[in-house]
Amino acid sequence: MMSHEHQIRVRYADVDQMGYVYYGHYPRYYEIGRAEFLRSVGFPYKRLEDEGVMCPVASIRIRFLRAPQYDELITIRTTVKKLPAKSVTFHMEVLLENGKLANAGEVRLAFVDAKTMKTSHAPESLLEVLRPHFS
Amino acid sequence: MMSHEHQIRVRYADVDQMGYVYYGHYPRYYEIGRAEFLRSVGFPYKRLEDEGVMCPVASIRIRFLRAPQYDELITIRTTVKKLPAKSVTFHMEVLLENGKLANAGEVRLAFVDAKTMKTSHAPESLLEVLRPHFS
Amino acid sequence: MMSHEHQIRVRYADVDQMGYVYYGHYPRYYEIGRAEFLRSVGFPYKRLEDEGVMCPVASIRIRFLRAPQYDELITIRTTVKKLPAKSVTFHMEVLLENGKLANAGEVRLAFVDAKTMKTSHAPESLLEVLRPHFS
Amino acid sequence: MMSHEHQIRVRYADVDQMGYVYYGHYPRYYEIGRAEFLRSVGFPYKRLEDEGVMCPVASIRIRFLRAPQYDELITIRTTVKKLPAKSVTFHMEVLLENGKLANAGEVRLAFVDAKTMKTSHAPESLLEVLRPHFS
Repeated sequence: MMSHEHQIRVRYADVDQMGYVYYGHYPRYYEIGRAEFLRSVGFPYKRLEDEGVMCPVASIRIRFLRAPQYDELITIRTTVKKLPAKSVTFHMEVLLENGKLANAGEVRLAFVDAKTMKTSHAPESLLEVLRPHFS
Repeated sequence: MMSHEHQIRVRYADVDQMGYVYYGHYPRYYEIGRAEFLRSVGFPYKRLEDEGVMCPVASIRIRFLRAPQYDELITIRTTVKKLPAKSVTFHMEVLLENGKLANAGEVRLAFVDAKTMKTSHAPESLLEVLRPHFS
Repeated sequence: MMSHEHQIRVRYADVDQMGYVYYGHYPRYYEIGRAEFLRSVGFPYKRLEDEGVMCPVASIRIRFLRAPQYDELITIRTTVKKLPAKSVTFHMEVLLENGKLANAGEVRLAFVDAKTMKTSHAPESLLEVLRPHFS
Repeated sequence: MMSHEHQIRVRYADVDQMGYVYYGHYPRYYEIGRAEFLRSVGFPYKRLEDEGVMCPVASIRIRFLRAPQYDELITIRTTVKKLPAKSVTFHMEVLLENGKLANAGEVRLAFVDAKTMKTSHAPESLLEVLRPHFS
């Protein structure tokens, strides 16, 4: 199990007329979380695409508890609990500036061979980088 | 049980470099679906806010099967299976232009009293409009 | 000179905490306007890309007068005043539901050959379709 | 004249099927630039709203030269050339990771009294903070 935290600032563009982040912006926040998770282990997502692997999202789930407001510095915590196989699941938490949980969710990504457009197994290059953290 | 269908066009803004709609745009598409569902029964969402009721999203879940491409005319099918009580659940389907299922999901909205900011029951005015469809 | 009007509904996703459409959504609205303009003359933008022509935006300019609110049915009026040559300029107006001008602007698109990635002249296929409207 | 630079990472959500940042995301990038400019002088934009001043955008202009790609670390350079009066103009530049100019533009914001909803002069509290930099 591995976790990574990344902070982002809530922008005016993200807040709706209720005064809180619009629910539709969290998938983008979650994308930022998993991209920074992968960067932190030395395997930026871009490298996956460079190696001919695409990772479309297979499913997402979010439970909303509280919502951040404009200009809050929120924390995106990304956790991978199991070594990727046919897919990879990122467990996501967004924390308000005061540390309280704003929402939690899971995103599952498939691995697709960009040439054949067929689903595949997680590439060995990625597993090599992750394995030391899971043993 | 009530269903409503609404068509929207996929815009350039919505498509990522894989050539398909970015997964983060579906919450907005789902919002359009439920707004048009409510308009179709004669109770536009705006009326809820005018009556002092806010409906923050409590949870969302999406399973992705296929993704639409630029300029496709997609169909958003919104279904409500149960009369709202402490919350309302919208069952969502997005269909490609060729009729195949792109993704399916559920969005649950809470009812919150805008004055007290406490959760409440679905307002009677909304239930009045929906009841005939559920008996 | 040719004009085309297209109506869209303002969505919750588009409105910020001032209660009006966030200024950053108009480029998307303008994209919708010019896409529907092109569709109306029988030359959907997609066909340009299918013919190997890309149209990156070279410049945009918007003057904001008033802003629409949630759920307004706004009108996007797109006007082309001159036959495209090395670029095409779309003159844009967004009208509130009450008919008042919300904002006005111009977007200039270049033509780029997708193979060579060099700027080019407007493709003859597009000009053929537009010429009858400009004589 | 004052300048401030702030770096952001281009996200998957921001890139269209041409493989470059969609032109409609720059207003959001520009918003980030001016928000960080104001924070750097000790006057976060939020404080303006707390003091009852709203700053709707009056106009925007962008000239696009090059576009960043996915995962680039771009620099937003925000410059204010004149002390705000009835409005404030932010001169914007976005630089690619390689330092080349991606685009340049100007955004002019009005000052509006949130109570009366009438345009007003830049608040004295903001001018106090800015003046030392302009003398």
